[in-house]
Amino acid sequence: MSGNTFGKVLRVTTWGESHGPALGAVIDGCPPRLPLSAADIDAELARRRPGTSIHTTARREPDRVEILSGVFEGLTTGTPISLIIYNRDVKSEAYEPLKEIFRPGHGDLTYQAKYGIRDYRGGGRASARETVARVAAGAVAQKILDTVNIRVVAFTLELGGVRAQNFLWEQLTDNPFFCPDPEAAAAMAARVQAVKQQGDSVGGIVEIRVQGCPAGLGEPVFDKLDAVLAQAVMSIGAVKGVEIGAGFAAATMTGSQHNDPLTPGGFASNRAGGILAGIANGDEIVIRAAVKPIPSIALPQQTIDVHGQPQTISIGGRHDISAIPRIVPVAAAMVKLTLADFLLRQKAVA
Amino acid sequence: MSGNTFGKVLRVTTWGESHGPALGAVIDGCPPRLPLSAADIDAELARRRPGTSIHTTARREPDRVEILSGVFEGLTTGTPISLIIYNRDVKSEAYEPLKEIFRPGHGDLTYQAKYGIRDYRGGGRASARETVARVAAGAVAQKILDTVNIRVVAFTLELGGVRAQNFLWEQLTDNPFFCPDPEAAAAMAARVQAVKQQGDSVGGIVEIRVQGCPAGLGEPVFDKLDAVLAQAVMSIGAVKGVEIGAGFAAATMTGSQHNDPLTPGGFASNRAGGILAGIANGDEIVIRAAVKPIPSIALPQQTIDVHGQPQTISIGGRHDISAIPRIVPVAAAMVKLTLADFLLRQKAVA
Amino acid sequence: MSGNTFGKVLRVTTWGESHGPALGAVIDGCPPRLPLSAADIDAELARRRPGTSIHTTARREPDRVEILSGVFEGLTTGTPISLIIYNRDVKSEAYEPLKEIFRPGHGDLTYQAKYGIRDYRGGGRASARETVARVAAGAVAQKILDTVNIRVVAFTLELGGVRAQNFLWEQLTDNPFFCPDPEAAAAMAARVQAVKQQGDSVGGIVEIRVQGCPAGLGEPVFDKLDAVLAQAVMSIGAVKGVEIGAGFAAATMTGSQHNDPLTPGGFASNRAGGILAGIANGDEIVIRAAVKPIPSIALPQQTIDVHGQPQTISIGGRHDISAIPRIVPVAAAMVKLTLADFLLRQKAVA
Amino acid sequence: MSGNTFGKVLRVTTWGESHGPALGAVIDGCPPRLPLSAADIDAELARRRPGTSIHTTARREPDRVEILSGVFEGLTTGTPISLIIYNRDVKSEAYEPLKEIFRPGHGDLTYQAKYGIRDYRGGGRASARETVARVAAGAVAQKILDTVNIRVVAFTLELGGVRAQNFLWEQLTDNPFFCPDPEAAAAMAARVQAVKQQGDSVGGIVEIRVQGCPAGLGEPVFDKLDAVLAQAVMSIGAVKGVEIGAGFAAATMTGSQHNDPLTPGGFASNRAGGILAGIANGDEIVIRAAVKPIPSIALPQQTIDVHGQPQTISIGGRHDISAIPRIVPVAAAMVKLTLADFLLRQKAVA
Repeated sequence: MSGNTFGKVLRVTTWGESHGPALGAVIDGCPPRLPLSAADIDAELARRRPGTSIHTTARREPDRVEILSGVFEGLTTGTPISLIIYNRDVKSEAYEPLKEIFRPGHGDLTYQAKYGIRDYRGGGRASARETVARVAAGAVAQKILDTVNIRVVAFTLELGGVRAQNFLWEQLTDNPFFCPDPEAAAAMAARVQAVKQQGDSVGGIVEIRVQGCPAGLGEPVFDKLDAVLAQAVMSIGAVKGVEIGAGFAAATMTGSQHNDPLTPGGFASNRAGGILAGIANGDEIVIRAAVKPIPSIALPQQTIDVHGQPQTISIGGRHDISAIPRIVPVAAAMVKLTLADFLLRQKAVA
Repeated sequence: MSGNTFGKVLRVTTWGESHGPALGAVIDGCPPRLPLSAADIDAELARRRPGTSIHTTARREPDRVEILSGVFEGLTTGTPISLIIYNRDVKSEAYEPLKEIFRPGHGDLTYQAKYGIRDYRGGGRASARETVARVAAGAVAQKILDTVNIRVVAFTLELGGVRAQNFLWEQLTDNPFFCPDPEAAAAMAARVQAVKQQGDSVGGIVEIRVQGCPAGLGEPVFDKLDAVLAQAVMSIGAVKGVEIGAGFAAATMTGSQHNDPLTPGGFASNRAGGILAGIANGDEIVIRAAVKPIPSIALPQQTIDVHGQPQTISIGGRHDISAIPRIVPVAAAMVKLTLADFLLRQKAVA
Repeated sequence: MSGNTFGKVLRVTTWGESHGPALGAVIDGCPPRLPLSAADIDAELARRRPGTSIHTTARREPDRVEILSGVFEGLTTGTPISLIIYNRDVKSEAYEPLKEIFRPGHGDLTYQAKYGIRDYRGGGRASARETVARVAAGAVAQKILDTVNIRVVAFTLELGGVRAQNFLWEQLTDNPFFCPDPEAAAAMAARVQAVKQQGDSVGGIVEIRVQGCPAGLGEPVFDKLDAVLAQAVMSIGAVKGVEIGAGFAAATMTGSQHNDPLTPGGFASNRAGGILAGIANGDEIVIRAAVKPIPSIALPQQTIDVHGQPQTISIGGRHDISAIPRIVPVAAAMVKLTLADFLLRQKAVA
Repeated sequence: MSGNTFGKVLRVTTWGESHGPALGAVIDGCPPRLPLSAADIDAELARRRPGTSIHTTARREPDRVEILSGVFEGLTTGTPISLIIYNRDVKSEAYEPLKEIFRPGHGDLTYQAKYGIRDYRGGGRASARETVARVAAGAVAQKILDTVNIRVVAFTLELGGVRAQNFLWEQLTDNPFFCPDPEAAAAMAARVQAVKQQGDSVGGIVEIRVQGCPAGLGEPVFDKLDAVLAQAVMSIGAVKGVEIGAGFAAATMTGSQHNDPLTPGGFASNRAGGILAGIANGDEIVIRAAVKPIPSIALPQQTIDVHGQPQTISIGGRHDISAIPRIVPVAAAMVKLTLADFLLRQKAVA
């Protein structure tokens, strides 16, 4: 059983390869009578679009969605919403030399091992381009969250070792990193340029915060809200760790340090990150994702080809230095999809 | 849609409350003709049993499983395997005072918010006792993994700030922490005693390693192997963070530092933690879980009751100082269930 | 992926073999705060119990359920409801001679082909005894239907060629066939006795009617309400056909004969059987199931053994002459489970 | 949870409205390395295309599929296969008068009741046009069935009261009804013309036969092979009844008449229709579906509008007289999808 569908009641199935004719998502289970237009989705796509900054040099895709079904006269109808984004700026010939080589840090080897065949052009299904469909679907999920006023914000907490210290939310979109700290953003930009010069790449940490999530969302045991959020965020390529609230720092705390006191006015602190026993407690939900550096680098790397022979590879071409600028909106989309699904799940039994 | 089932092809549904008559699991999708006995499962249950050490003072449960279906003359038949573990040492009256109070760090408030009703005795479904069914099911999963010789080892990497430095695997079960470093284990024991004196509790980090996982296991996009492992491990109560391979450390690395070089003899390093693009690469799988300190502490805590009135609570009774000794076998069980499911999923299309 | 779970939001997983220690069901997704007691379920079990009439000679089982989880102080809690029914009157030695033989009309051969192993005692998982768990779960489903006043009635429409002509609902439980026509019931009893004398068995038709189903229940395309009802009813052993409303008679009608005229007061007829385009139209839902004769007969039959050698078999023992009396409550249970699931599914998006 | 996905391991999600820009299917879980081209699919689409005979006057759609993903250099890759069929010959203005009226026998009223909104143009999602995506997906399923040589044949057994008496398979596609009896086909054609003159429509019976299904396919209890086939076939609009093997005739048989004797050479008869206890027995699988007459007729009908006011309606326009010619390939497709899914499900545990 393959893994291209996410969600239990709000079910999103994505499809498409980096260098195929198009990518898309089918969203089944969206409630009827919600306003939805292609423009709503395009606004989100613009945030993850490659080529919007000097840091993401590369491919130029207009990334406009077409809604092929499930919307009538501007409103969702309750039937499946089919979204399609065509690939325009595809230069497959650049990948011809990579046809017989396994790039380190990529899925080339593992896709070959799994399927015995792979679309080597641009990473095929394993390409970051796959996330365009997630972001499109996330824009639909937001429409569901709007009905109860849940708001999701994602931002760069750390990049290349530079960590945000101030959180000026109104300046979040003023820099290509979606970093709420303008000074840190400037340092991140400098760090990216330096690393680029060296033919290398950098990782970082994305944080996602959710306001307005009603207490009671979440399901016990296996589908705990934090567990499914962990799956959702870890399912983004390049993410190597996920934590909720205090996260890994909780490992060194004592109970009296970690427990959030309860007061008649609410929780006195939020080390839980808004979730207790897998169910939202009404406080802000806080998630952090560790992002590995982009594996495609100009520096020469040791690898093997499909015949098992040693090779040295230097990957030029149209590659990002850091996945972060694009992962920020993708992480937000995955959190939105998760919460919208849990909102509908809760309605089923409330 | 509730969340008490885990897996897609190997499907495990657990049920039961801490102070109900019994807990159990139904395992559907187990292949036929595998040897399985109650003794196989009891051996695993013994590892997580409360009351096996001075560190887990509390409840004394024999924890013996009965296999009610799905096994005939010592072999699985392919039909659902129903496992039941009766509760024996239940002292519900101890929870009577907690009937109207929300314990900090527990699910009392969130279960009430979600369902408008809750079994307050021992935490009901949110109790750590729930995990007995996971461990039982994990023993069945191991039978499936045995067919391809996949081995899962879980251990305490860190507890109360004490971190294992040596990895003497043969000494893993010589201490109650399942810690491969005897010296660290001794320091952990001392730390637990000191914290206990203070009426407090400690957290830590569990690491799980998988040997023998064939390259190619895993599914693209949403059900990436690391994503579902993250869900599996994060679904264990008290886990606040999950990382794979280099994990959060990857955030500060460059691509040339993080990428694992490929050689004709295999990977030259394992910062990926055995998974690339969501699919096993044949190397050892490495997962770490951050565990928060036990929220039930003797130190007085500020909280509210069900009427919203402020209260001070001091939780004595039969509580662990650290969840780690019990979480180690639970984490192993969740990883086994995940891998067994992916193994069957792969068979479906291979 | 095995098939022992039914439903999407209200999910019922059953387990157990005819001659194992017990059978049971785990019901996940039941809304909280519904009144539920073992007595509620036992009342339904009494209706399908073997040995309650001369027509079902056989096995004497008290069939009392124990609720092991999910209910607290008489109310459902929203957590999984685990139901168990122990087997008491098991005489497995009677099946010893059948160990190596494939009974005609039974699943002996197909279970062997599928699994390469089978619990031959009493048919194992393929036994009609399996349906005790369905009826128990159906009693829980009824609690959900009660919240919107949906009522399900099942009855014997035809048995051994004798068809009910009158529908005196108050007399439905006055005869062992659940037949609303007392005269037909008497003729059915006579037919059963005659066939029994001949060492043979008979089939029949069960009809299920649903009152109070709100218009709008059902899902388009693959999970049409009638489609899932067809699966639900066809999943009962011995059912060989299912029809809705006019059913097979519709094949010979014209459009003007079949269409139900719509009036301001409702539909002027109900050839649709209460469902249009897979969604309930608010009218009575009418389902009929064709039931094959019990395959275990005393008359000698030609068959083969596990070695492929020809054998003659005459099956005595504790067998029913017709499956109908037991299938009637099972069919009602399956319809209840289906409707309760669709009710919750609709709540998720309404 | 909506119902636009079919299958458990081979999962098909369809989308699209009758008068939207396109319809399509996403097929997840298809094994890799199977040959697949648009031409393979177009050949199947040609069989269900509207406007191919005098009996299906209406809409002229070229119905050519585009494969948007999941195929590389002529082979499936194991990633989702996205299929799209554009709508070309859409004349929505013909439906403007139906905007506020509920057509008898159609889903207008029930979609409105369910969703509170509906795309009234051509029936929206409830249109028979929806089945184009099923047929496209069925062509992919056939590629999976090819690997074990399973063959599915569907044909018209009865139409307008005319029943096939001879089964000349080589002449099956010589008439627009897919009827293996040329004389019956001629009588059916005459019957359709006569009914058309009267402004009416006719129903019929489709039969589907499966050769080469290996014994052992199918899953016990709820997902019995016959149960899921019943869902699959009943999910086709206009189908009101489904039977397997002897079907409803079994209701009047005795056990000795119905049981199929087993011999060393196989079954001596096939009243079971190839399935025992929900699992294929290796014999031919035989399914019949009762199809109601097309509800859109020129004869005046009594109905109501969206305001509840009585109206008389006469439906001209581009409508079929019988759904049969189009349902035959759709029924075959649904059976193919079911069997391909069960084939993969069996691989997971075999």
